Amino acid sequence: MATIPLGRYLWERIHQCGINHIFGVPGDFNLTLLDHIYDVDGLEWVGNTNELNAAYAADGYARVRSNAGCLVTTHGVGEMSAVNGVAGAMTEQVKVIHVVGQTSRAMQKNHMMIHHSIGFSPDHQVFNKASKGFRCAEAALQSEEGAAEEIDRVLRECFVHSRPVYVFLPIDLVDKPVPAKALDTPLNLEPEVDTQSVEEATSAVLEALYASKYPALFVDCLVQRHNAVSEIKQLADKLAIPIYASNMGKGIVDETHENYIGVYNGQPSGTGVQSAFEASDLVLVVGNLPSDTNSGGFTRRIPTEKAVAINAEDVSVKGGKAFSNAPIKAMLQKLLEQVSTDKVPKNSKPKLPETPPEDDANSKMITQSWIWHRLAEFFQPHDIVIGETGTASFGLPDATYPADTTWITQTYYGSIGYATPAAFGSAVALSDATTSRSHGRTVLITGDGSLMLTMQEVGNMVKHKLNPIIFIINNAGYTIERVIHGAKQSYNDIVPFDYKHMLSFFSMPEEQAKASFHRAETKAELEEVLKLDRVREPKGLQIVEVVMDMMDVPWRLSTQVATRGPEAIKEMKEAGFKVREMQKQEAYWT
Amino acid sequence: MATIPLGRYLWERIHQCGINHIFGVPGDFNLTLLDHIYDVDGLEWVGNTNELNAAYAADGYARVRSNAGCLVTTHGVGEMSAVNGVAGAMTEQVKVIHVVGQTSRAMQKNHMMIHHSIGFSPDHQVFNKASKGFRCAEAALQSEEGAAEEIDRVLRECFVHSRPVYVFLPIDLVDKPVPAKALDTPLNLEPEVDTQSVEEATSAVLEALYASKYPALFVDCLVQRHNAVSEIKQLADKLAIPIYASNMGKGIVDETHENYIGVYNGQPSGTGVQSAFEASDLVLVVGNLPSDTNSGGFTRRIPTEKAVAINAEDVSVKGGKAFSNAPIKAMLQKLLEQVSTDKVPKNSKPKLPETPPEDDANSKMITQSWIWHRLAEFFQPHDIVIGETGTASFGLPDATYPADTTWITQTYYGSIGYATPAAFGSAVALSDATTSRSHGRTVLITGDGSLMLTMQEVGNMVKHKLNPIIFIINNAGYTIERVIHGAKQSYNDIVPFDYKHMLSFFSMPEEQAKASFHRAETKAELEEVLKLDRVREPKGLQIVEVVMDMMDVPWRLSTQVATRGPEAIKEMKEAGFKVREMQKQEAYWT
Repeated sequence: MATIPLGRYLWERIHQCGINHIFGVPGDFNLTLLDHIYDVDGLEWVGNTNELNAAYAADGYARVRSNAGCLVTTHGVGEMSAVNGVAGAMTEQVKVIHVVGQTSRAMQKNHMMIHHSIGFSPDHQVFNKASKGFRCAEAALQSEEGAAEEIDRVLRECFVHSRPVYVFLPIDLVDKPVPAKALDTPLNLEPEVDTQSVEEATSAVLEALYASKYPALFVDCLVQRHNAVSEIKQLADKLAIPIYASNMGKGIVDETHENYIGVYNGQPSGTGVQSAFEASDLVLVVGNLPSDTNSGGFTRRIPTEKAVAINAEDVSVKGGKAFSNAPIKAMLQKLLEQVSTDKVPKNSKPKLPETPPEDDANSKMITQSWIWHRLAEFFQPHDIVIGETGTASFGLPDATYPADTTWITQTYYGSIGYATPAAFGSAVALSDATTSRSHGRTVLITGDGSLMLTMQEVGNMVKHKLNPIIFIINNAGYTIERVIHGAKQSYNDIVPFDYKHMLSFFSMPEEQAKASFHRAETKAELEEVLKLDRVREPKGLQIVEVVMDMMDVPWRLSTQVATRGPEAIKEMKEAGFKVREMQKQEAYWT
Repeated sequence: MATIPLGRYLWERIHQCGINHIFGVPGDFNLTLLDHIYDVDGLEWVGNTNELNAAYAADGYARVRSNAGCLVTTHGVGEMSAVNGVAGAMTEQVKVIHVVGQTSRAMQKNHMMIHHSIGFSPDHQVFNKASKGFRCAEAALQSEEGAAEEIDRVLRECFVHSRPVYVFLPIDLVDKPVPAKALDTPLNLEPEVDTQSVEEATSAVLEALYASKYPALFVDCLVQRHNAVSEIKQLADKLAIPIYASNMGKGIVDETHENYIGVYNGQPSGTGVQSAFEASDLVLVVGNLPSDTNSGGFTRRIPTEKAVAINAEDVSVKGGKAFSNAPIKAMLQKLLEQVSTDKVPKNSKPKLPETPPEDDANSKMITQSWIWHRLAEFFQPHDIVIGETGTASFGLPDATYPADTTWITQTYYGSIGYATPAAFGSAVALSDATTSRSHGRTVLITGDGSLMLTMQEVGNMVKHKLNPIIFIINNAGYTIERVIHGAKQSYNDIVPFDYKHMLSFFSMPEEQAKASFHRAETKAELEEVLKLDRVREPKGLQIVEVVMDMMDVPWRLSTQVATRGPEAIKEMKEAGFKVREMQKQEAYWT
């Protein structure tokens, strides 16, 4: 065929980029566009329960697939409902394609007061302008001429920069014919590489490495976002130097790796990890995203003169000039090719001191000091572990993950409510038998506060017969806020839910709903739940409500808050929170 | 006291403007600000289940109170989650004050990578910039110097223009002392009035009125937004000419008024209404908001030479030059003062022909042609009737409301999901015994599709022991989209819910939950439900699930779609929808 409708072109191209599912919510200005999804072999519409959830789901899907996720919304009301989720993908560098079905060009040109618009002579592009800060590129289509090229351009930008892009498609353009020929050639989605820059950067990195005595590898989340997981794993094997991860970078290099030490997060690091790390004289910092929450409140200490920074798109060695157009994946490939392992200093792995037992180790109740280690035993290789912002995201760094765990957390953007729809996106991705990422479980750990914001997406899991396991930490409100301020203020209370009715409300058949809901108030009860076959190898959605004390927080969270200074420590203590004294326990080198 | 903390000043001033409840969601950057709410006598924190819902709730609260609503969110994640609700208030001209707790000035100045920010050298004002199109003013505070004056300025703007305003408050400013003295003088919230302009406009309006033969009054929603309901009611009494309302303007003048004819909405008007209206030779159009959905797809015919437009802030007579600074309330007051009733032409009320019986009048099942008339009988004077965008907002114009009904619908912005949190805001407003608007019931009529988007706010109604009545039209998906396009496409399906479990899930005690849920599949069943004392005079939240056919739509909706042209009519008919032939049935004057 010489031409195809523009709407069809869009979906064919998106599918060709490796996307098999489209998230979103229908609306007047995207219905005919949605029709074309059904025409594309292997592409499937997956509706969401609202637009914010659609954006989060597309983000989770993208992360699990190491590809992009796509959502469709409608003019104004839809796109603005989704914008916070897209902003999250922007700052977390996740590939999200947001397609907006707009009003027709005539409506736009004539400033018509079409529903979903603003004011008496509405600028229909006011919403496009509003989301400008939350994408790396947009195709604001106004003609079928060149529209296909514009779509191709922004899809490439999405993959190259690993950030959201927008496609704005006026409804009257959906069925305009465009040349189909371009579809014969798949898009080049790889970033531009300056081979000379990569060569030079590699030499500089290796020179610094060979000259060091105690080098270390520090792995952060942008390695995963820029699709260099396989390369970093190989490099970790080859270098055989101590390996550390950030909070967000956990699980990228297997935590079972013989050289893996632990999560280095400045002051809130495990016993001895900080001093072990800081004894390094050179650190290869790969894929760094140093937000406060991912750096122990900026207490990560990697002095410039000790740092080799292999960033998403450039490299700098000990603070020297940046080698630009040296993308992370190409850099790691070149390092793998050029490194002489016999020139890399050999050091044995630092031995960490034992962590002293917690005060509440013998509690019969489920405690923050216990649960994360216990969940670690429940995790299996190839699991997708999703930790919601809250006690989960600050507790899970205590869990040592099995090999090939995919760890999903929105630690920089930190929008509570993210994790539940992201888990839906993850479960959709795993249900796709046509891809290599179709095994493993989706394990969501969220809290009662965060779940409240986006809970309807659990209904979508039931509808689609997906089988994630959802742990709900029920600690009667926003505990992460209580420890920051206002421990007993009513603003940190939430609506109480009786979770045993949730699955029935979401139309799971009664018998199944009853068997799929579990509740644990004590360690012993949780142990029983975690032994159940239907929880370990779920055939359908499982809910595990875990009751915990509202004033119990992970030590990493209170320590992070403590980095704010003595006032914060005093306030926590007065409110009744335990604050771990950060003794400097030295690791030692053998 | 000579000074008070800036945060306290803000809340004192907001309370002084007549606001007794603050909606929102807590977050790191607003916690200390929220503390000050508790210091203000008569001001109460009301948390929401997410930020979008908070914005909708503040909007509903504002409408019921004929005052403003206020929500608080946190930097980035919170403010962006709420933005769609604020955009709705912007276009619907509702007074919403959005207070955003921002990062500290030092964090902003140093572009620190604080959680909720975007990128490596984040501009913390990126979110402020994003919402710029959705407010009439903002106070972006950066110093305690002049901060109180800035707050006063934007609060006044909110009331004067009846549109949203923002207050951005960096967290380190919350406890800075500011002079308290200004609080001794309540803010002037009335718009500037150019008395000469009002005099001239009044003369011009009266001259046109006296010279007419068949004048009519057309009442639209901006009368309510700009607090001129009492004045328009008096004027309607005094003029004694035929009265029409728009879809959005229903209920402002009592529909029981002896001169009330009906809803004039262009082609989708009741039998005979269109021809009766269009026979007028002069129409006083008051508070016009002529969006497509509020004008029968722009088929309202009010030729300029017949129109006297009394707009929110200006007046024009028969298309002549605008009289500016002639706000609606001042104009109506002046008209009331100056009109000589004996010069107003006397016409008897046009008699409308009988509406022919519907094809499905004898159906035992609950039909769109029956339910709205039936619900009209259920309504009581002083009810707040909230109709969600969907079959409810297009069906309810068939219901003749009792006197003093407050009608809430978001017909221009049309963001589905709005109505449920707006009903929460309404119920909070009615629960406040300190105000004159503390009687009547909140009656929400929503659909299964729309409810899905924001359903958690129903849990908040249970938590606060509020007593709205919620009718859920369960017609298996987005029927309003089906009639537009894709009647049987899967994108118009939703997650199915089993509503009988909803109240238990939201922690209503089991016995009460059972007694408070009602389900009707037939007219006879619904009749039984509507007779129940606990539904008629609810002491706690009541849910009535109303099962209807997914292909049944209000005639006003299919007629509105039909205004798009023959293609749209053909598509509806082929899909199996009934489309009423728009015969011209003439009204006649006696």
